[in-house]
Amino acid sequence: MTTITKPWDDVADKNVVLRFIDTNLKGSGQVMFQGNALTGLLFLVGIFWGAIAAYTITVAIGAVVGLVVSTVTGMMLHSDDDSMRIGLYGYNGVLVGAAFPTFLAGGVMLWIYLVVGAAASTIAFLAVANVFKTWGVPALTFPFNLVNWFFLLAAFQFLRIETSDLSAGQFPQHIGDASVHAEITFSFLWDTLFRNVSQIFLINNTVTGIIFVIALLVASRWAALFALIGSAIAMGSVLALGANTVDIGNGLYGLSSVLTAIALGSVFYNPSWRVFVYTVFGVLVTVVIHGTLVSAFAPISLPAGTGPFVFATWLFLLPKKKFVPIQHDTIEGGAAEGKDSIAKANG
Amino acid sequence: MTTITKPWDDVADKNVVLRFIDTNLKGSGQVMFQGNALTGLLFLVGIFWGAIAAYTITVAIGAVVGLVVSTVTGMMLHSDDDSMRIGLYGYNGVLVGAAFPTFLAGGVMLWIYLVVGAAASTIAFLAVANVFKTWGVPALTFPFNLVNWFFLLAAFQFLRIETSDLSAGQFPQHIGDASVHAEITFSFLWDTLFRNVSQIFLINNTVTGIIFVIALLVASRWAALFALIGSAIAMGSVLALGANTVDIGNGLYGLSSVLTAIALGSVFYNPSWRVFVYTVFGVLVTVVIHGTLVSAFAPISLPAGTGPFVFATWLFLLPKKKFVPIQHDTIEGGAAEGKDSIAKANG
Amino acid sequence: MTTITKPWDDVADKNVVLRFIDTNLKGSGQVMFQGNALTGLLFLVGIFWGAIAAYTITVAIGAVVGLVVSTVTGMMLHSDDDSMRIGLYGYNGVLVGAAFPTFLAGGVMLWIYLVVGAAASTIAFLAVANVFKTWGVPALTFPFNLVNWFFLLAAFQFLRIETSDLSAGQFPQHIGDASVHAEITFSFLWDTLFRNVSQIFLINNTVTGIIFVIALLVASRWAALFALIGSAIAMGSVLALGANTVDIGNGLYGLSSVLTAIALGSVFYNPSWRVFVYTVFGVLVTVVIHGTLVSAFAPISLPAGTGPFVFATWLFLLPKKKFVPIQHDTIEGGAAEGKDSIAKANG
Repeated sequence: MTTITKPWDDVADKNVVLRFIDTNLKGSGQVMFQGNALTGLLFLVGIFWGAIAAYTITVAIGAVVGLVVSTVTGMMLHSDDDSMRIGLYGYNGVLVGAAFPTFLAGGVMLWIYLVVGAAASTIAFLAVANVFKTWGVPALTFPFNLVNWFFLLAAFQFLRIETSDLSAGQFPQHIGDASVHAEITFSFLWDTLFRNVSQIFLINNTVTGIIFVIALLVASRWAALFALIGSAIAMGSVLALGANTVDIGNGLYGLSSVLTAIALGSVFYNPSWRVFVYTVFGVLVTVVIHGTLVSAFAPISLPAGTGPFVFATWLFLLPKKKFVPIQHDTIEGGAAEGKDSIAKANG
Repeated sequence: MTTITKPWDDVADKNVVLRFIDTNLKGSGQVMFQGNALTGLLFLVGIFWGAIAAYTITVAIGAVVGLVVSTVTGMMLHSDDDSMRIGLYGYNGVLVGAAFPTFLAGGVMLWIYLVVGAAASTIAFLAVANVFKTWGVPALTFPFNLVNWFFLLAAFQFLRIETSDLSAGQFPQHIGDASVHAEITFSFLWDTLFRNVSQIFLINNTVTGIIFVIALLVASRWAALFALIGSAIAMGSVLALGANTVDIGNGLYGLSSVLTAIALGSVFYNPSWRVFVYTVFGVLVTVVIHGTLVSAFAPISLPAGTGPFVFATWLFLLPKKKFVPIQHDTIEGGAAEGKDSIAKANG
Repeated sequence: MTTITKPWDDVADKNVVLRFIDTNLKGSGQVMFQGNALTGLLFLVGIFWGAIAAYTITVAIGAVVGLVVSTVTGMMLHSDDDSMRIGLYGYNGVLVGAAFPTFLAGGVMLWIYLVVGAAASTIAFLAVANVFKTWGVPALTFPFNLVNWFFLLAAFQFLRIETSDLSAGQFPQHIGDASVHAEITFSFLWDTLFRNVSQIFLINNTVTGIIFVIALLVASRWAALFALIGSAIAMGSVLALGANTVDIGNGLYGLSSVLTAIALGSVFYNPSWRVFVYTVFGVLVTVVIHGTLVSAFAPISLPAGTGPFVFATWLFLLPKKKFVPIQHDTIEGGAAEGKDSIAKANG
C-alpha cells in the first residue's frame, strides 16, 4: 500500500523473526486503524519519548510487553492468519500494557497482572469481534476498555496491586466556575491539539502527539487530516460547553474524538462532504459521551479510556441506508400465544 | 385505518408541507405505538396543556423542536420512506425534546444541546433498531433513554448546561415508613390513574392524562383499555409493596407500566386471555424494574425515564414458542480446540 | 447416560407426577450442567443440610419453591419439551429461590416477590437464550443474576421487603492490610476448597460442598475433577493477590471459578491439555471479574452472585478458531453515504 515500507515488507515476509516484529508493529499501528509497520514503529517511538519525558518508562515497557503478549496469544489460539499479519491481535494489548502502569502500581504482581490482562484482551477481541460481526461492525478498542475497566476495578480488592493513581470515588457534581476559567492562550490550544492525539496511548506530551500525526501521514493522508480535524472540533466544542480546562489541556476530552474522526471520516466510510458532516456530528456526540463516562464512572473511580470513541463510532456505523425497522405491529410466534396460534403459525 | 382521519390523510398525501406535518404528528403518536396523526396531535395538545399549567412551556416547545429535528434527521439519512411516513423517526426525538428542559437549564446552549440530542436520537434509533431486528424485536423508546441518560450525565461536566433539576447523588437506602404512609383517597387514585399516562411525556397532570387516553381511543380501543389496565395494576401493586407515595401520586411508578401494557396487550400480541395474563405479569415486572432503576441510578442522579418499559417489554417479547436453547453440551469450533479438532471439524 | 439412575428414569417416564419430580430434580442438577435427577436430589440434600445448620431453613424452602415455580412457568409457556425434560427451565429458578431469602426478609410479601421472581427467571431464560443462541453460546445462569440483581435493587424502594442483609452502599476502597493477614491453616484451605463449591447455591458449609462434589461424581467424573481444580486455582491465585481472607474463607471468591472450570473444562469443550490450559486461564479471569463486581457493586449494595462465571465463560466460549473479524476498511451501505453510493451499491 505505502511504497515507503515496501523494502521492509519484502524482507519481513521471508524471515520468521522479522515477520513476528512486523506483525507486532502493525498491531501498534492498528490502534489508529493503520496496518503499517512504520506507523506502528513511530507510535512506539512517540510512546517512549513521552514516557521518558514524564519519568514513567514503565508505561512504554508495558506497552511493548502488552503488544507482544496479546499477539502471541492470538497465535496460540489458531486465529485467522491474515488478520494476524495486519496486526488485529495486538492493538488492544498495547493499550492494556500502557494503561495498567499508568493507573496501577505493585512490582512483580503488577507485571503478572499486565500479562494476564494483555492475553485476556485477545480473548476479549475474538469474543467482541464475533458478536459485532453480526451487524458488520468492528470490535474497535472495546476489548481494551473492557479489560482495562475490569482489571482496574478488581485491583481495589487485591492488596498486591496498588490503585493510588485512580481518583477517589465520588458522586457526580456539576462542574464549578473555577475549573473552567483558565487562560486560553495560543500555546494552550497548540498543546491541546496534539495532546488529544498523544493521549490515545495515554501519553500527555505535545511532541508525542506530533510524532503520532507524522506516523499517520506515513500510512494515510486522510487519517492524519481527520485526526487533526477531530482534535480541533473536540477542543472547540468542549471549550464552548465549558468543561474542566485542566482535563481539556491534558488532551482527555479529545482522544476519543480523534479516533472517531479517523474511523468515520477516513477508514470505514469513503471521504465525501456527506461523510464529513456525519463525522463532525459523530465527534460532537463523542465529546458528550466523554462527559457521560466521566460522570458515570465518578463513583467507581474509573477512567473513560477510549470508551467514548467506541460507543459513538458503533452508534454511527450501525445505521444503514433504507433500513427497514421492526414495525409496531403483531409479532408472530411469541411464547404468550396459545396452542391454537401454534397451529396457525405452523399451518 | 381509522375513518376519522381519512379526509386529512387524503389531503396530506398530496401536499409537501402537510405531508411533513402529518409525518411529525404520527411521530408523536408512535410514542404509544399509534401511527395516527390525530392521536399525535392530541398528544401535543395534552403536552401543551400540562406544560402551561405547570409554568414550564419550554417542555412543550422542546417536544415540538425535538420531534421536528429528529424527523428531519431521518430524512437526511435516506431512511426507509414507509417507516418515515408512519412516524418511526420522530417518537424518540419528541421525548428527548420534552426531557431536556425538564431536567436541565441553560439558555441558548441548552437548545443547541437539545437539537444535537434530538438528531442523535435518530442515529441511535437506526443503530438500536438494526441490532434488535436480529431477534425480531423493535427498538421501543430505548434510543430516547440512551440519549437522555448520556446527555444528562454529561451535563454535569459542562458549565453552560445546568443540572439543578437532577437530584443529588446518594447510595440507595431502604425506603422509610414516612415516605409510604400518605392518605390514599379516591382523588389520589383518580389522579394517579391518569398521571401514570401523562408522565409518559414527562407531564404531571391529570387532564393531560385524560387527553392522552382519548388520543389513544381515536386510534385503538384496545390500546386505550390496556393503558388504563396497566395504570391500575401498577398502582395497585406498588401500593401493596409500599413504595414512595409522592412518586406514586406523580405517576412515576406507572408510566412504564402503561407502555408495557399497551405494547404487550394490544400492539405486539393479538389480545386474548393468555396474552392478558402475560401482559399483567409483564406489568408487575415493569413495576419492579422501575424500583431497580431508581436504586441503581441513585448514585448518578439519573431518572428512570421509560427504561423499565423497554427492558420489561424486550424481556417479554424475546421468548418464543417451542424455542430450543443451546444445550449444555460440547460446542464445536472453539478457539481452545487443537489443530486436530480443526481437521475433524473441517473433514 | 448414568446407569445408577436407569431404574428411576424408567419409572419416571411413565408417571406424570414422577416425571414432574424428575424434571425438577434435573433442573436442580443443571445449575452445574448435569441433567441428572440424582445429582439434583443430592444438591437439594446439600442445600437443606447447610441451611438447617445455619438456621436459615427459608433458603432451602425458597430453593424448592423457586425450582417448582420456574419449571411450571416453562410448561405454561409452551416451551420446547426436550429442553424441559432435562431441566433447562428450572436451574435459574432454584437459584432465585435460594438467593431471595438470603438477602431479603419480609413475611408473605417476600414469598410473593420470590414467586414472581422465579417465574420471571424463566421468561428471562427464554429471552437471554434466544439472544445468545445467535453466537452458539448458552444463557448460563445470567437469567438468575439478572432477576437477582433487579429484584434486590428494587427492594430498597419497597417498604414491605426488607434489605437488611445487603451491605450498605460505599465507594470502592483499596483493601487494607488487616483484611488480608489471617492465618492460613490446613483447615482454612480444606474448608475453602469445598465452600467454593457450596456457595454456588449460596450455602456456606464444608459438608454441603462435599455433598455437591459427590453429586457431580454421580453424573460426571470430569465435572467433579474440574470443580475441585477450579476451586483450588481460585483459592491459590486469590491468596497470592491478597484479597479479603474472610470472603475467601466463606467461598465467595471461588464459587464462580468452580462453575467456569466445570463449564469450560468438562461441558462445552472436550477435555484435553489445550482445553485444560484454556480453562485455567478462564478461572484466573473469573477471579479477577469477581473482584471487578465487588468494586462495581459497592455503591449499589449488590452481591456478585454467579455473574463472574457468566461473563468469563461467555468471554471464553465466543472466540472461534480461524475466525475472520471485520477488517479496518470501508463498510458499504452506511446511512452516511450519498444517493449516488446507493445507486452504486444496488447496481
